[in-house]
Amino acid sequence: MELVAKRRQKQGPEGISYNKSAKQSIPDLIDLSVGDTDLITDSRIIERARADALKGYTHYGDPKGDPELAEAILRAWREDHGESVPGEQLLVTASSCLGMALVMLAMLDPGDEVIIFSPYFSVYREQVELAGGKPVFVPTYQQEGYAISERRLRDAITPRTRAMIFNNPNNPTGAVYGRETLEMLARVAREKDLAVVADDIYTYYFFEGEYLPIRCLPGMAERTVTLNSFSKNFLMTGWRVGYIIAPSPLIQAMSDINGALCYSTPSISQRAAIEALALRAELGACYGSVYRQRVEYAAGRIAAIPYLSLLPPRGTFYLFPGIEATGLSSREFCRQLLEKAHILVTPGSAFGSEGEGHFRIACTVGLDALGEAFDRMQGLKF
Amino acid sequence: MELVAKRRQKQGPEGISYNKSAKQSIPDLIDLSVGDTDLITDSRIIERARADALKGYTHYGDPKGDPELAEAILRAWREDHGESVPGEQLLVTASSCLGMALVMLAMLDPGDEVIIFSPYFSVYREQVELAGGKPVFVPTYQQEGYAISERRLRDAITPRTRAMIFNNPNNPTGAVYGRETLEMLARVAREKDLAVVADDIYTYYFFEGEYLPIRCLPGMAERTVTLNSFSKNFLMTGWRVGYIIAPSPLIQAMSDINGALCYSTPSISQRAAIEALALRAELGACYGSVYRQRVEYAAGRIAAIPYLSLLPPRGTFYLFPGIEATGLSSREFCRQLLEKAHILVTPGSAFGSEGEGHFRIACTVGLDALGEAFDRMQGLKF
Repeated sequence: MELVAKRRQKQGPEGISYNKSAKQSIPDLIDLSVGDTDLITDSRIIERARADALKGYTHYGDPKGDPELAEAILRAWREDHGESVPGEQLLVTASSCLGMALVMLAMLDPGDEVIIFSPYFSVYREQVELAGGKPVFVPTYQQEGYAISERRLRDAITPRTRAMIFNNPNNPTGAVYGRETLEMLARVAREKDLAVVADDIYTYYFFEGEYLPIRCLPGMAERTVTLNSFSKNFLMTGWRVGYIIAPSPLIQAMSDINGALCYSTPSISQRAAIEALALRAELGACYGSVYRQRVEYAAGRIAAIPYLSLLPPRGTFYLFPGIEATGLSSREFCRQLLEKAHILVTPGSAFGSEGEGHFRIACTVGLDALGEAFDRMQGLKF
Repeated sequence: MELVAKRRQKQGPEGISYNKSAKQSIPDLIDLSVGDTDLITDSRIIERARADALKGYTHYGDPKGDPELAEAILRAWREDHGESVPGEQLLVTASSCLGMALVMLAMLDPGDEVIIFSPYFSVYREQVELAGGKPVFVPTYQQEGYAISERRLRDAITPRTRAMIFNNPNNPTGAVYGRETLEMLARVAREKDLAVVADDIYTYYFFEGEYLPIRCLPGMAERTVTLNSFSKNFLMTGWRVGYIIAPSPLIQAMSDINGALCYSTPSISQRAAIEALALRAELGACYGSVYRQRVEYAAGRIAAIPYLSLLPPRGTFYLFPGIEATGLSSREFCRQLLEKAHILVTPGSAFGSEGEGHFRIACTVGLDALGEAFDRMQGLKF
């Protein structure tokens, strides 16, 4: 019998895919496709998880989050950003991917519109659509330094617009937005009564300026949903822990929906996250510096490859080179890169139509493997 | 600004709630409300998680599941049920709660109907509704031993019916269904071209008969979705690992949707689950016996309390006594039990209107605490 719903049988637009067959069949593959890292989570974090599991932290626990983790998150927020956030404005989630889905499911009525700056992390579109909403894309361009245009933003707003998703630093472009952009977005959000959903998951990877949460701007706490995660900042992708700071009615609605999704966040992972926060000054500086070195090395190598173009890197561990000079589509370029050089990267078209003409490199291998990848790329001609 | 969607502002029917204030404010509270346990996950499982985390299993991994865990699950299925299931019919999920949500999101078009035997685990309703489906309840009754009536089932089927959810052994009633019921359900499903979604998460807690997966009946593999979990069978509620066995097109659709929800299942928890499966003969026998002893003890105590009625327990770690003799609603009864005896249980009305006149006891504390709870109950008059 046909078990799949009719609405699920149409093929959606391509997103970031997990290329299992390439990983299995190409022994000398260099995988720069997934936003994960070669580094293992710090052993002190792992030992804390074990010790607390043996003490009995193997149960559901509070579905809104381990109370000690909640306290540690709010304390860190106060210390880092000078804002006291009450406990009822926090929800711990099993990843900020799930967090973003919860935001959309709790916030959107069918047909509500959400503005997404493009190129964009492709999962946003799926999350908006899963909630019955309509993604509306506002383009940004390499030749403009991926600046967000206030005019294009205003043109995209309709009476159905509920929110804009703002990802800073940006995946996939690596762009970093400073106070001026944040103030422009805040002004537009207040004026048009929109929410800002801030996907703040790469905050240890600012190579220019530093993390300023948009919720800390005047009048923004009441209309900002801040998503954060341990995955990227602490190299804890496998643990599935993130959190959301937002006004309490939305937190309650999301928690209710989560009761029908993951119910609670892995308890062992939450204990690990407590340790991560305690080590954040040390680990943040270390990981920020490791990735900055890789990204800057990669940018230097790209500058010497005639068929690629690139802006100076400013944040994240992604690079988003242009491939106009090859005359190929991003999908075809990536296919050839895999075939000829055994390098797995993600075509720009996976990040929306504005991503076409680019590809994304995740600098999630060490300098040696990165060097080898660029040696192979340098040998290619298009 | 109002951040919560209009459709989320109406209060849904009551479900199982997490009573944080009672847990915090009543020092001698005996909590029999949540389907979690007092026992800690076996230390060998915890040590495996730690060892593998230190080896580098701290990454996303394959979003369909750790390949070694997938292999272990399929091997155990073959050994336990004599059926070889191909890898593309398996999806590892961050809990079978998330699994059930994925089933509904992948299977239902708006307005599709799903049959739920009531009393029922209240989250089913939310999962069906989250996917835009309509739950249709088929009642079962204590005085009929919670037997599923073929006539009532057939009366509930319409052209929009897509599936029935079948939970065996049953939460909250503790009922166990044998081959005759499974064959009746299979016959109706085949005849009416319906899917059976088998929530098989208490399979180590059959006190009568043994686990027979409905998917193993003739012609049922193509229309059965089997949900399983490590939470209850292995006392691993906090780890959030479950899995789904289903025809591969549905597996693919669910995996696609999961890309916008939790993306991958906690990698550390999956390594723990590998160890759990290796220990399943020992742990299954042990936990089955521990809970059977508790449930039988509790049933004996209930028999001596004049205002309660109960069927002989047959499975799970739940008891669902009737309270008709008190003349109270289940909610009021539970309120008084909390106030007068400091015992937290779940009102039957949380499990659908057929649950009214009952309350659920989760035997998830040791015999001493259970004994204390029943001493307190025995002293009450209604």
